[in-house]
Amino acid sequence: MAEHDFAALKQTLYTAVLSDVLDGLGHMHQAMRPFVRPVFDDAVIMGRARTGLWMNAYSVAAGENPYEHEIALLDDLKPGDVAVFGCDGPTDRIAPWGELLSTAAMCRGAEGCVTDGLVRDVRQIRQMKFPVFHGGIGPLDSRGRAKMVAIDVPTECGGVRVAPGDIVFGDIDGVVIIPSAIADETISRALDKVTSENHTRDELLQGRLLADVYAKYGVL
Amino acid sequence: MAEHDFAALKQTLYTAVLSDVLDGLGHMHQAMRPFVRPVFDDAVIMGRARTGLWMNAYSVAAGENPYEHEIALLDDLKPGDVAVFGCDGPTDRIAPWGELLSTAAMCRGAEGCVTDGLVRDVRQIRQMKFPVFHGGIGPLDSRGRAKMVAIDVPTECGGVRVAPGDIVFGDIDGVVIIPSAIADETISRALDKVTSENHTRDELLQGRLLADVYAKYGVL
Amino acid sequence: MAEHDFAALKQTLYTAVLSDVLDGLGHMHQAMRPFVRPVFDDAVIMGRARTGLWMNAYSVAAGENPYEHEIALLDDLKPGDVAVFGCDGPTDRIAPWGELLSTAAMCRGAEGCVTDGLVRDVRQIRQMKFPVFHGGIGPLDSRGRAKMVAIDVPTECGGVRVAPGDIVFGDIDGVVIIPSAIADETISRALDKVTSENHTRDELLQGRLLADVYAKYGVL
Amino acid sequence: MAEHDFAALKQTLYTAVLSDVLDGLGHMHQAMRPFVRPVFDDAVIMGRARTGLWMNAYSVAAGENPYEHEIALLDDLKPGDVAVFGCDGPTDRIAPWGELLSTAAMCRGAEGCVTDGLVRDVRQIRQMKFPVFHGGIGPLDSRGRAKMVAIDVPTECGGVRVAPGDIVFGDIDGVVIIPSAIADETISRALDKVTSENHTRDELLQGRLLADVYAKYGVL
Amino acid sequence: MAEHDFAALKQTLYTAVLSDVLDGLGHMHQAMRPFVRPVFDDAVIMGRARTGLWMNAYSVAAGENPYEHEIALLDDLKPGDVAVFGCDGPTDRIAPWGELLSTAAMCRGAEGCVTDGLVRDVRQIRQMKFPVFHGGIGPLDSRGRAKMVAIDVPTECGGVRVAPGDIVFGDIDGVVIIPSAIADETISRALDKVTSENHTRDELLQGRLLADVYAKYGVL
Amino acid sequence: MAEHDFAALKQTLYTAVLSDVLDGLGHMHQAMRPFVRPVFDDAVIMGRARTGLWMNAYSVAAGENPYEHEIALLDDLKPGDVAVFGCDGPTDRIAPWGELLSTAAMCRGAEGCVTDGLVRDVRQIRQMKFPVFHGGIGPLDSRGRAKMVAIDVPTECGGVRVAPGDIVFGDIDGVVIIPSAIADETISRALDKVTSENHTRDELLQGRLLADVYAKYGVL
Repeated sequence: MAEHDFAALKQTLYTAVLSDVLDGLGHMHQAMRPFVRPVFDDAVIMGRARTGLWMNAYSVAAGENPYEHEIALLDDLKPGDVAVFGCDGPTDRIAPWGELLSTAAMCRGAEGCVTDGLVRDVRQIRQMKFPVFHGGIGPLDSRGRAKMVAIDVPTECGGVRVAPGDIVFGDIDGVVIIPSAIADETISRALDKVTSENHTRDELLQGRLLADVYAKYGVL
Repeated sequence: MAEHDFAALKQTLYTAVLSDVLDGLGHMHQAMRPFVRPVFDDAVIMGRARTGLWMNAYSVAAGENPYEHEIALLDDLKPGDVAVFGCDGPTDRIAPWGELLSTAAMCRGAEGCVTDGLVRDVRQIRQMKFPVFHGGIGPLDSRGRAKMVAIDVPTECGGVRVAPGDIVFGDIDGVVIIPSAIADETISRALDKVTSENHTRDELLQGRLLADVYAKYGVL
Repeated sequence: MAEHDFAALKQTLYTAVLSDVLDGLGHMHQAMRPFVRPVFDDAVIMGRARTGLWMNAYSVAAGENPYEHEIALLDDLKPGDVAVFGCDGPTDRIAPWGELLSTAAMCRGAEGCVTDGLVRDVRQIRQMKFPVFHGGIGPLDSRGRAKMVAIDVPTECGGVRVAPGDIVFGDIDGVVIIPSAIADETISRALDKVTSENHTRDELLQGRLLADVYAKYGVL
Repeated sequence: MAEHDFAALKQTLYTAVLSDVLDGLGHMHQAMRPFVRPVFDDAVIMGRARTGLWMNAYSVAAGENPYEHEIALLDDLKPGDVAVFGCDGPTDRIAPWGELLSTAAMCRGAEGCVTDGLVRDVRQIRQMKFPVFHGGIGPLDSRGRAKMVAIDVPTECGGVRVAPGDIVFGDIDGVVIIPSAIADETISRALDKVTSENHTRDELLQGRLLADVYAKYGVL
Repeated sequence: MAEHDFAALKQTLYTAVLSDVLDGLGHMHQAMRPFVRPVFDDAVIMGRARTGLWMNAYSVAAGENPYEHEIALLDDLKPGDVAVFGCDGPTDRIAPWGELLSTAAMCRGAEGCVTDGLVRDVRQIRQMKFPVFHGGIGPLDSRGRAKMVAIDVPTECGGVRVAPGDIVFGDIDGVVIIPSAIADETISRALDKVTSENHTRDELLQGRLLADVYAKYGVL
Repeated sequence: MAEHDFAALKQTLYTAVLSDVLDGLGHMHQAMRPFVRPVFDDAVIMGRARTGLWMNAYSVAAGENPYEHEIALLDDLKPGDVAVFGCDGPTDRIAPWGELLSTAAMCRGAEGCVTDGLVRDVRQIRQMKFPVFHGGIGPLDSRGRAKMVAIDVPTECGGVRVAPGDIVFGDIDGVVIIPSAIADETISRALDKVTSENHTRDELLQGRLLADVYAKYGVL
């Protein structure tokens, strides 16, 4: 995979065009389910997945730090990283992400967070403009309910398999996972498709019929 | 059914009063389920239903244009029409509506779209201020997942039966379908009920007890 | 339970810290399920629960006033009260709360409403800035579908048991119920924990690692 | 409605043919949802609905007998009656029917019970061969969880409206409700359709193609 | 794909061993979801998939035969064929299979039916000992609710993709789809694994510890 | 907790009476949800819980034995133990129990198994008459999908908290967990209540009204 300029690509690409391109490459299960939503409407995220795998727990053992893996992953985040917390969502049980983790991640230079668990401290995260995509909103801490048990292993989040190093892209329309092996090809094709969509829109705005414009550009 | 001035009625009516009137006429299943939501909060829609019936598909045959019916319906939309896409929602599978269809529909003079499928390109549709009511947000194109198979036939959308020519009314509180056979009666009664509700509100604001005001106007 | 200054506490406390403190006291089922949401994003509510218990109904008997208990509860609301309507939500069936009840409640000095049923007249309630937490949005009146059958009895709302007189606290992250027997202890501990969270945030913003800050303050 | 010989009709009719006839009469919502199942496979039930409407409850008041309506309905059952307990199922909360109610109902001459709540004491009810159709199996008593609040009022059970006096028919394929106003017509047509289905089966068993047999008898 | 002796293989193989082998070949999504169940407990089915793709419909057009494709598929079934009806189940809407189709299919020599729709006439199908796997039991005819729209196209059933000619295997534990391209390899490996499982069972019955037996045979 | 003669108690007690007694002691959440069912109808289980806690996994690391904890728990089972596998069910993902584990457990003298995951090899387990209570039936091995990560820790199963050493009781009506701290009291009261229920049944069979019999014995 080439080095990509995430900041520039975030200006041009969007999840719908990436999803279409991934479909065309035969990868039809790359969009997270619709319950995964951004914490504010204009949040856009693009980066490399750093995965955390969660399990339910129903007690905390004496002397156990239930946040151990979570803290380790947070403190190891690098610029360009997206924390992906796989909680087998949708769930009502836990909000593994909140203001304090957002603050810690932002200070490490991370791009944001995607989780199919809940998020809390929504007001503060919006004020920080830190892009978090979540599986619902709720105040419940994970302590005594669940814990992260593995870092940088394959997981699922929002119904999509995510491997460490996959490209995560999220915007108002949802979250798409681009497997690292096809990331270059996907991004290249997506940039091309953006152009066709722009032409299509322009001609539609001039009043042409959809049948004609679709026949010409082949995108919808 | 009389010709109705949708633009004027949209200023006065709202889904709650229409739902109450339909209840009073014995039609208690006319409000779509709550998962059908407007793409922006102040969207209001009123118009005649133009229905499209969707089915799941798991492949595209050689030479097939999976968008055939969809394009035909879009290009045939008239001013005052509302595209109603029945996708057997809620669904995670497809986003049959997006920016390009919104553009095409707007250029034909259509009033908007109601679907129990997903919608994509939410940011652009909000900028266009085109009223779309949807069953969720997601980036997934329908190609290879589903297709429209019939136009202007009875369908269900959001749990409500919709026949071509029925009146569709949607606002922040949801979407109500007014069967064409009782549209005149429903609209007439609803305009009356708005007045009673205004009186009720006024007297409550003056501090009167709900028991007294309800006894006087009979609305709640 | 001591008298609490709800207006002041609403400025300082939030559901996440209250939920954590309740967890610490062994009460781990006090947060309503995430489908219960505020009708506007900056709604904050704190007050004493006045409960209304709802049942499904499928007809209205001759001469029956199906709103009888509802009106009685509304007209009896006192300053500091929160109407809690337990509808066994989530539901698609009824919107027991709307603009008129909001108006009536506000004129009695009530703090707001929490229900796991639907709410309607969302636009007007937002304009009134009356804090309503609801289990979804829809236009359906309760008449002929359900009715309130008991006032000030234990109920469940959003999956949490609520007894009359319990403290209700809601904000953007959800709704938490504080049983009256532990209200003083919960509030006192929560005020302390807010301070620790503030220290944690400050040190994270200075770039310290999460591992170090958590070791120092023990909050996450 | 004519007097019907339920015992004889139970030998000839079945839910599938009744459902088809009700469809043909324009009543397409008369079959309970598939989660309503017989407590033993060869249970067949036919009789007049005696309805009990249930609500959730979360406490028992001092001096209250939570079984009051339930006992009253049971002791008032007549031969040919079917107890229909509408619990807004499917539910995990309560098993309002069990061995003791089966015994009481059987001793009154009742035909059986249909509920969308749970049933308990399944082993004993099977031994009694008392036809009970239920919404699941579980041991939970209703006390402190729910109570019956009305007798012989319209209710819903398994997703179907049931009015007192409607005809209830259940067998291995499910439960169908025949509104009393169309009971005679429905039963008469169903007896005719049984004959056509018998002819169809006979000719298929002789090896004829489905296309030919369907063309001849028009049933499938 | 080689010709396989389905009758002999049905005696030796079972879904669990086939599912394990498919897992080992990297095909981890070949088992239908657990709601698909056999109509009688000792039903075993093995054969080639003949697929029918269903869509919801809400009306029958004048002159339309809604059973057209269904009848065509039934009359074209060959010995060794399994009718696979993809209805986007689980569903409460339709029972597309029943006694008459079972009779027609049996008379054509078909192996049985798998559907994620409902089945009706369960008693008679059990008497026929015709292996039908279904997504629930209910009396509802498809007419006016749904129709088959394509034959021998890729579909999904019970959450698994099924292409015409894939091998269908079902027993008490569920239904597994073996893609035709890997059918020979899967069957060959499965026969080997049966032997290892037999050895494992024998040694466990002799009282050896699971740890030791698993270390020796590597199956669980 | 006293030593209890599980074999004798299984003859006399049943889940409904235990659930009622636990209700009376203020423990109203001790019955597993109804999706947990016995693998054969006359299965009865009573014993001490030996818990295994499961998590989802999406890969198997090189050199990892994903069955490690599972095998350890199985080989450590003692007479009177019930293996309780907490899989956060209901689930479609895994069948962690099957014939081989049943064989191993039976050879250790264990009483049976309760899981909210799926079970496979249902035919063979029925033949063994080994009482297994499960959350559904399916062929899917856990390898690459999930793994047990802790033994003899508190877990949840079928929606009920289970601690090691709690008493598990299951029969045709479901599964009840008796916390070890109240086991003696619960069993003692249950034996008394069985007697009252027997008297109630006897008098009902003599034709007495339910109102009278309930007034006399107070059980229903």
